[in-house]
Amino acid sequence: MLEPLAHIGRDPATGGYVRDGWSDADMELREWFAGEAERRGLDLREDRNGNLWAWWGSASRDRPGVVTGSHLDSVRQGGAYDGPLGVVSAFAALDILRRRGTKPSVPLGVACFTDEEGARFGVPCMGSRLLTGVLEPERALALTDDSGDTLAGVLTKAGRAPYEIGRDDETLAMVGTFVELHVEQGRGLVDEGRPVGVGRAIWPHGRWRFDFHGRADHAGSTRLADRDDPMLPFARMVLAARTAAEARGVVATVGKVRVSPGNANAIPGLVSAWLDARGADERAVRDLVTDLAQAGVEVREESWTPVVDFDVALRERLARVAGGDTPAPILPTGAGHDAGILATAGVPSAMLFVRNPTGVSHSPAEHAEQADCEAGVIALADVLEDLCR
Amino acid sequence: MLEPLAHIGRDPATGGYVRDGWSDADMELREWFAGEAERRGLDLREDRNGNLWAWWGSASRDRPGVVTGSHLDSVRQGGAYDGPLGVVSAFAALDILRRRGTKPSVPLGVACFTDEEGARFGVPCMGSRLLTGVLEPERALALTDDSGDTLAGVLTKAGRAPYEIGRDDETLAMVGTFVELHVEQGRGLVDEGRPVGVGRAIWPHGRWRFDFHGRADHAGSTRLADRDDPMLPFARMVLAARTAAEARGVVATVGKVRVSPGNANAIPGLVSAWLDARGADERAVRDLVTDLAQAGVEVREESWTPVVDFDVALRERLARVAGGDTPAPILPTGAGHDAGILATAGVPSAMLFVRNPTGVSHSPAEHAEQADCEAGVIALADVLEDLCR
Repeated sequence: MLEPLAHIGRDPATGGYVRDGWSDADMELREWFAGEAERRGLDLREDRNGNLWAWWGSASRDRPGVVTGSHLDSVRQGGAYDGPLGVVSAFAALDILRRRGTKPSVPLGVACFTDEEGARFGVPCMGSRLLTGVLEPERALALTDDSGDTLAGVLTKAGRAPYEIGRDDETLAMVGTFVELHVEQGRGLVDEGRPVGVGRAIWPHGRWRFDFHGRADHAGSTRLADRDDPMLPFARMVLAARTAAEARGVVATVGKVRVSPGNANAIPGLVSAWLDARGADERAVRDLVTDLAQAGVEVREESWTPVVDFDVALRERLARVAGGDTPAPILPTGAGHDAGILATAGVPSAMLFVRNPTGVSHSPAEHAEQADCEAGVIALADVLEDLCR
Repeated sequence: MLEPLAHIGRDPATGGYVRDGWSDADMELREWFAGEAERRGLDLREDRNGNLWAWWGSASRDRPGVVTGSHLDSVRQGGAYDGPLGVVSAFAALDILRRRGTKPSVPLGVACFTDEEGARFGVPCMGSRLLTGVLEPERALALTDDSGDTLAGVLTKAGRAPYEIGRDDETLAMVGTFVELHVEQGRGLVDEGRPVGVGRAIWPHGRWRFDFHGRADHAGSTRLADRDDPMLPFARMVLAARTAAEARGVVATVGKVRVSPGNANAIPGLVSAWLDARGADERAVRDLVTDLAQAGVEVREESWTPVVDFDVALRERLARVAGGDTPAPILPTGAGHDAGILATAGVPSAMLFVRNPTGVSHSPAEHAEQADCEAGVIALADVLEDLCR
């Protein structure tokens, strides 16, 4: 199912995908989306924040539609499924409805949200956060990527209007219900022995930048006693984060580190580390960050998303429709999604998960069986048909 | 004294210097060197490895000269003195000899070695290592910088002939004696209360790359128990390196780290860290690396330089000449230098150190007082006059 996208942004050395928002790979993926919309005679729109919408029927504030979709960008060296599976399945489910002769009583939309992973600018769900207004345009435009380019500059280069980004109530009002299909990023469905599940909640999660300041100096001629080496408190923080996460029953990860100046023969002057922490209990997540914020380290919260409980009636309806004879299992997740951002903004939202045999995600090893992906498409088609009745 | 170079490769944000070998900044520094040579009517040559030589008098295998100099490249975010002080002082000392009316009985050369710091390709003293044949040309040409460019490509772009690099006995034979003046990278001269000292020995030192392999995975949905996160053994290594260094009486530094894929929301698949270790006792340095090479980590030696004891007669002669009434102190150093590479290749070599009030080096805070720099130039002039007699 993902074959048409398989070559885009693929690193031949690792088999992983590099598909940063607004990169060449992303532009190619957006063109693919436009082509799929056109091929089906859908009405393609790009909103002010770069999110793509392909409508079957004419949606408006007075006639909101049912929307499904996900994102096409990737974490760096990510897998093929995280994001694209939801978009490809959306088009495939729409095709099934048409083959079935379904006449939706409301408009049906396929969405592709921009820069969901935040691989480039550090803020995940950029497209949906801007759309819903939880991210300030001024803050977003000033964000810089590894090359020092701002989002404002990158948008301009991509032919977009950076000063038009921001909260877009008109677009949001067209979304009556949102359903996002996604590969599961864990082994809940493996344990349940089911190909498809429904989202219960998204754990509260956040990202913090820890800056450890020290004194850059020569690696050979500076006595140990004279050193102020920030690599040491950084290393202690990494180990303390694991210990605290175990103690508090949450997860904590340091996946990104920047060492400055980064010479092999110099004691660093600055080590910056990004802590990702999540868990079922918001208090426990926040306490973990407090545990780690020792004297001398500068801690900045880069993002925080409170717990998202998906609409109870909607998720139970999905579980019944998607589950066949036995309702589909309803599972929590530690991963953030655009569906969570929309739910927080008041859009009735839900998620379908497709079984992941190893649970591995954000890695080239991410996988889902073809049969499970097909079961996902059928479940999504059934859900859309039910919601559009 | 360093004023003419002050603007080249300077980062206005930090005041630090970024002067990688063969970068635009390096090319500008090389032009400055050529101009200084021309202004003095010296015979400028660039050898096959990019090292620059400015000769007063005609040196040959049969008539080797006395050479002084250092390097112009910098560690990233380095200071103004490490390298350039030795080159600027060389020209200034030559001017003094001419003002004194000295007629050298042997040719006198000013040298600038290429890529001493190894900031770009990871191998320090590249120019002198290639010249003396201790670095294989094939290995050097295949080295890559952060952008993935090979040395071969970089040399070609700089208009040089990459396939002519390598051992150059003809050039080396012209160097009868080499004296390198350098800012001290420690506080030995502060403790002695003297502006100028002489090098006794360069500690054995090496650089090792540690690759910690794990399994890239999602930072939110992967249970702690299911993780294989290489950031943890890496952090333990950083702390163990300090403990082992204290126990074994050596210094050890992790100043460069690369996390792959480096997403804030993903458990890394690979953490690569560079360990720099040095000490008076070679055995202790090697034992430290063995201490740290635990199961599961892949360790590669990127460079190793055995202890260099500078020529005893030469260093004592320098101490007498440079010291005035009381011989200059003779000090060991933990820093590598081109003088050490030449000494190992059998060239009688020596070093003069200029007092560094804080001992800080490889940092924008590196400093030497003007009066001490002037004392260094006079000491160097006296030493050259003595050696050229």
